[in-house]
Amino acid sequence: VGFVVNSIEAVAARFAGSIGATWNHTIVHDRLQVVRVSFIHASNPLGTSVELVEPAGVGSPVERFLRGGGGLHHLCYEVDHLEEQLKSSRSMGGVVVRPPLPAVAFEGRRIAWVFTKDKLLIEFLEAAK
Amino acid sequence: VGFVVNSIEAVAARFAGSIGATWNHTIVHDRLQVVRVSFIHASNPLGTSVELVEPAGVGSPVERFLRGGGGLHHLCYEVDHLEEQLKSSRSMGGVVVRPPLPAVAFEGRRIAWVFTKDKLLIEFLEAAK
Repeated sequence: VGFVVNSIEAVAARFAGSIGATWNHTIVHDRLQVVRVSFIHASNPLGTSVELVEPAGVGSPVERFLRGGGGLHHLCYEVDHLEEQLKSSRSMGGVVVRPPLPAVAFEGRRIAWVFTKDKLLIEFLEAAK
Repeated sequence: VGFVVNSIEAVAARFAGSIGATWNHTIVHDRLQVVRVSFIHASNPLGTSVELVEPAGVGSPVERFLRGGGGLHHLCYEVDHLEEQLKSSRSMGGVVVRPPLPAVAFEGRRIAWVFTKDKLLIEFLEAAK
Protein backbone atom coordinates (compact mmCIF):
# COMPACT_ATOMS: atom_id res chain seq x y z
CA VAL A 1 0.00 0.00 0.00
CA GLY A 2 1.52 3.32 -1.07
CA PHE A 3 1.11 6.40 1.13
CA VAL A 4 2.26 9.81 -0.10
CA VAL A 5 3.97 12.18 2.31
CA ASN A 6 5.84 15.44 2.12
CA SER A 7 8.93 14.11 3.89
CA ILE A 8 9.74 10.46 4.59
CA GLU A 9 12.35 11.42 7.17
CA ALA A 10 9.87 13.57 9.08
CA VAL A 11 7.17 10.94 9.46
CA ALA A 12 8.49 7.42 8.89
CA ALA A 13 9.45 6.45 12.45
CA ARG A 14 6.19 7.71 13.91
CA PHE A 15 4.15 6.27 11.03
CA ALA A 16 5.74 2.87 11.63
CA GLY A 17 5.02 3.10 15.35
CA SER A 18 1.36 3.83 14.69
CA ILE A 19 0.95 0.49 12.90
CA GLY A 20 3.10 -1.46 15.35
CA ALA A 21 6.09 -1.67 13.05
CA THR A 22 9.59 -0.25 13.00
CA TRP A 23 11.33 1.74 10.30
CA ASN A 24 14.63 0.53 8.90
CA HIS A 25 15.72 4.04 7.79
CA THR A 26 16.36 2.92 4.22
CA ILE A 27 15.22 5.42 1.61
CA VAL A 28 15.57 4.72 -2.10
CA HIS A 29 15.62 7.42 -4.77
CA ASP A 30 13.89 6.27 -7.94
CA ARG A 31 14.91 8.81 -10.58
CA LEU A 32 12.77 7.24 -13.29
CA GLN A 33 9.62 7.68 -11.18
CA VAL A 34 10.81 11.00 -9.69
CA VAL A 35 10.08 9.82 -6.14
CA ARG A 36 11.87 8.73 -3.03
CA VAL A 37 10.39 5.67 -1.32
CA SER A 38 10.82 3.78 1.93
CA PHE A 39 9.13 0.63 3.14
CA ILE A 40 7.49 0.12 6.50
CA HIS A 41 7.48 -3.64 6.76
CA ALA A 42 4.65 -5.26 8.69
CA SER A 43 5.71 -6.95 11.90
CA ASN A 44 4.02 -10.08 10.53
CA PRO A 45 6.27 -11.21 7.64
CA LEU A 46 3.17 -12.20 5.66
CA GLY A 47 1.56 -8.81 6.19
CA THR A 48 1.27 -6.01 3.71
CA SER A 49 4.00 -3.39 3.73
CA VAL A 50 3.35 0.31 3.55
CA GLU A 51 5.49 2.18 1.05
CA LEU A 52 5.99 5.82 1.95
CA VAL A 53 6.44 7.94 -1.17
CA GLU A 54 7.65 11.52 -1.42
CA PRO A 55 8.16 13.65 -4.54
CA ALA A 56 11.78 13.94 -5.63
CA GLY A 57 11.68 16.99 -7.83
CA VAL A 58 9.59 19.01 -10.21
CA GLY A 59 7.15 17.01 -12.28
CA SER A 60 6.95 14.16 -9.80
CA PRO A 61 3.78 12.13 -10.46
CA VAL A 62 2.80 12.39 -6.77
CA GLU A 63 3.14 16.17 -6.53
CA ARG A 64 -0.47 16.97 -7.29
CA PHE A 65 -1.73 14.22 -4.99
CA LEU A 66 0.41 15.63 -2.21
CA ARG A 67 -1.01 19.12 -2.74
CA GLY A 68 -4.44 17.54 -2.20
CA GLY A 69 -3.28 16.36 1.21
CA GLY A 70 -1.38 13.15 0.44
CA GLY A 71 -2.24 9.87 2.13
CA LEU A 72 -3.26 6.47 0.79
CA HIS A 73 -2.31 6.48 -2.86
CA HIS A 74 -2.04 3.06 -4.53
CA LEU A 75 -1.94 -0.70 -4.12
CA CYS A 76 0.99 -2.72 -5.44
CA TYR A 77 0.67 -6.28 -6.69
CA GLU A 78 3.39 -8.62 -7.86
CA VAL A 79 2.57 -10.42 -11.11
CA ASP A 80 4.33 -13.16 -13.07
CA HIS A 81 3.88 -11.59 -16.48
CA LEU A 82 3.80 -7.81 -16.61
CA GLU A 83 2.82 -7.34 -20.26
CA GLU A 84 0.00 -9.89 -19.96
CA GLN A 85 -1.26 -8.11 -16.85
CA LEU A 86 -1.33 -4.77 -18.65
CA LYS A 87 -3.21 -6.30 -21.56
CA SER A 88 -5.71 -7.78 -19.11
CA SER A 89 -6.04 -4.47 -17.24
CA ARG A 90 -6.70 -2.63 -20.51
CA SER A 91 -9.35 -5.17 -21.49
CA MET A 92 -11.19 -4.28 -18.25
CA GLY A 93 -11.13 -0.57 -19.07
CA GLY A 94 -7.98 0.30 -17.15
CA VAL A 95 -5.47 2.83 -18.45
CA VAL A 96 -1.72 2.21 -18.32
CA VAL A 97 -0.67 5.58 -16.93
CA ARG A 98 3.04 4.77 -16.77
CA PRO A 99 4.73 2.05 -18.86
CA PRO A 100 7.08 -0.63 -17.54
CA LEU A 101 10.33 0.73 -16.17
CA PRO A 102 13.00 -0.87 -14.00
CA ALA A 103 12.63 0.08 -10.32
CA VAL A 104 15.64 0.58 -8.13
CA ALA A 105 13.56 -0.23 -5.02
CA PHE A 106 12.92 -3.72 -6.44
CA GLU A 107 16.39 -4.73 -7.65
CA GLY A 108 15.67 -3.49 -11.14
CA ARG A 109 12.48 -5.48 -11.59
CA ARG A 110 10.04 -3.55 -13.75
CA ILE A 111 6.96 -1.73 -12.50
CA ALA A 112 4.04 -0.28 -14.44
CA TRP A 113 1.06 1.77 -13.34
CA VAL A 114 -2.61 1.21 -14.12
CA PHE A 115 -5.57 3.40 -13.25
CA THR A 116 -8.61 1.15 -13.21
CA LYS A 117 -12.08 2.06 -14.38
CA ASP A 118 -13.09 2.22 -10.71
CA LYS A 119 -10.34 4.77 -9.97
CA LEU A 120 -7.93 2.46 -8.18
CA LEU A 121 -4.28 3.19 -8.94
CA ILE A 122 -2.32 -0.06 -9.11
CA GLU A 123 1.42 -0.54 -9.35
CA PHE A 124 2.18 -3.88 -10.96
CA LEU A 125 5.59 -5.30 -10.10
CA GLU A 126 7.03 -8.15 -12.10
CA ALA A 127 7.99 -11.16 -10.00
CA ALA A 128 11.63 -12.14 -9.64
CA LYS A 129 12.66 -14.70 -12.25
CA VAL B 1 -7.62 -1.80 2.89
CA GLY B 2 -10.86 0.19 2.72
CA PHE B 3 -11.97 1.75 -0.56
CA VAL B 4 -14.98 4.08 -0.67
CA VAL B 5 -17.39 3.87 -3.59
CA ASN B 6 -20.76 5.26 -4.49
CA SER B 7 -22.31 1.86 -5.15
CA ILE B 8 -20.85 -1.52 -4.23
CA GLU B 9 -23.18 -3.33 -6.61
CA ALA B 10 -22.11 -1.14 -9.51
CA VAL B 11 -18.37 -1.70 -9.15
CA ALA B 12 -17.56 -4.76 -7.04
CA ALA B 13 -17.33 -7.43 -9.75
CA ARG B 14 -15.18 -5.28 -12.01
CA PHE B 15 -13.07 -4.03 -9.09
CA ALA B 16 -12.40 -7.61 -8.06
CA GLY B 17 -11.45 -8.54 -11.61
CA SER B 18 -8.95 -5.71 -11.79
CA ILE B 19 -6.98 -7.17 -8.88
CA GLY B 20 -7.34 -10.78 -10.03
CA ALA B 21 -9.97 -11.67 -7.45
CA THR B 22 -13.63 -12.58 -7.53
CA TRP B 23 -16.51 -11.03 -5.67
CA ASN B 24 -18.73 -13.19 -3.47
CA HIS B 25 -21.72 -10.81 -3.75
CA THR B 26 -22.09 -10.53 0.03
CA ILE B 27 -22.90 -7.04 1.25
CA VAL B 28 -23.27 -6.25 4.94
CA HIS B 29 -25.17 -3.26 6.26
CA ASP B 30 -23.53 -1.83 9.38
CA ARG B 31 -26.14 0.48 10.87
CA LEU B 32 -23.84 1.63 13.67
CA GLN B 33 -21.25 2.88 11.18
CA VAL B 34 -23.89 4.02 8.65
CA VAL B 35 -22.17 2.14 5.83
CA ARG B 36 -22.61 -0.91 3.67
CA VAL B 37 -19.46 -2.97 3.16
CA SER B 38 -18.33 -5.89 1.04
CA PHE B 39 -15.03 -7.71 0.98
CA ILE B 40 -12.96 -8.52 -2.08
CA HIS B 41 -10.82 -11.34 -0.78
CA ALA B 42 -7.35 -11.70 -2.24
CA SER B 43 -6.83 -14.82 -4.34
CA ASN B 44 -3.87 -15.59 -2.06
CA PRO B 45 -5.47 -16.51 1.31
CA LEU B 46 -2.66 -14.67 3.09
CA GLY B 47 -3.17 -11.54 1.03
CA THR B 48 -4.81 -8.34 2.12
CA SER B 49 -8.51 -7.99 1.41
CA VAL B 50 -10.08 -4.87 -0.01
CA GLU B 51 -13.21 -3.71 1.78
CA LEU B 52 -15.53 -1.72 -0.43
CA VAL B 53 -17.49 0.83 1.59
CA GLU B 54 -20.52 2.84 0.56
CA PRO B 55 -22.53 5.35 2.56
CA ALA B 56 -25.81 3.97 3.93
CA GLY B 57 -27.71 7.12 4.69
CA VAL B 58 -27.45 10.71 5.73
CA GLY B 59 -24.59 11.46 8.08
CA SER B 60 -22.49 8.51 6.97
CA PRO B 61 -18.86 9.09 7.96
CA VAL B 62 -17.73 8.34 4.40
CA GLU B 63 -20.10 10.78 2.70
CA ARG B 64 -17.67 13.68 2.60
CA PHE B 65 -14.81 11.47 1.46
CA LEU B 66 -16.99 10.18 -1.37
CA ARG B 67 -17.84 13.71 -2.46
CA GLY B 68 -14.08 14.27 -2.75
CA GLY B 69 -13.93 11.41 -5.22
CA GLY B 70 -13.80 8.33 -3.00
CA GLY B 71 -11.03 5.76 -3.31
CA LEU B 72 -8.47 4.40 -0.86
CA HIS B 73 -9.73 5.35 2.57
CA HIS B 74 -8.27 3.38 5.49
CA LEU B 75 -6.18 0.44 6.65
CA CYS B 76 -7.62 -2.13 9.05
CA TYR B 77 -5.52 -4.03 11.58
CA GLU B 78 -6.58 -6.78 13.93
CA VAL B 79 -5.34 -6.31 17.49
CA ASP B 80 -5.51 -8.50 20.58
CA HIS B 81 -6.46 -5.73 23.00
CA LEU B 82 -8.52 -2.90 21.59
CA GLU B 83 -8.45 -0.56 24.57
CA GLU B 84 -4.69 -0.94 24.96
CA GLN B 85 -4.24 -0.19 21.27
CA LEU B 86 -6.30 2.98 21.54
CA LYS B 87 -4.29 4.10 24.54
CA SER B 88 -1.09 3.45 22.60
CA SER B 89 -2.42 5.28 19.53
CA ARG B 90 -3.35 8.30 21.65
CA SER B 91 0.13 8.34 23.21
CA MET B 92 1.55 8.72 19.69
CA GLY B 93 -0.68 11.69 18.94
CA GLY B 94 -3.49 9.81 17.25
CA VAL B 95 -7.14 10.73 17.75
CA VAL B 96 -9.85 8.14 18.37
CA VAL B 97 -12.40 9.44 15.89
CA ARG B 98 -14.96 6.70 16.57
CA PRO B 99 -15.10 4.64 19.75
CA PRO B 100 -15.35 0.84 19.97
CA LEU B 101 -18.59 -0.56 18.60
CA PRO B 102 -19.59 -4.09 17.63
CA ALA B 103 -19.35 -4.66 13.87
CA VAL B 104 -21.80 -6.87 12.06
CA ALA B 105 -19.24 -7.53 9.30
CA PHE B 106 -16.96 -9.13 11.91
CA GLU B 107 -19.38 -11.33 13.87
CA GLY B 108 -19.94 -8.61 16.43
CA ARG B 109 -16.28 -8.08 17.23
CA ARG B 110 -15.64 -4.45 18.09
CA ILE B 111 -13.99 -1.91 15.82
CA ALA B 112 -12.66 1.56 16.62
CA TRP B 113 -11.21 4.27 14.40
CA VAL B 114 -8.01 6.22 14.86
CA PHE B 115 -6.69 9.12 12.80
CA THR B 116 -2.95 9.18 13.26
CA LYS B 117 -0.78 12.25 13.50
CA ASP B 118 0.45 11.45 9.98
CA LYS B 119 -3.13 11.46 8.66
CA LEU B 120 -3.57 7.73 8.28
CA LEU B 121 -7.07 6.52 9.14
CA ILE B 122 -6.88 3.13 10.87
CA GLU B 123 -9.70 0.77 11.75
CA PHE B 124 -8.66 -1.42 14.66
CA LEU B 125 -10.53 -4.71 14.90
CA GLU B 126 -10.39 -6.78 18.05
CA ALA B 127 -9.22 -10.32 17.48
CA ALA B 128 -11.60 -13.23 18.03
CA LYS B 129 -11.33 -14.60 21.54
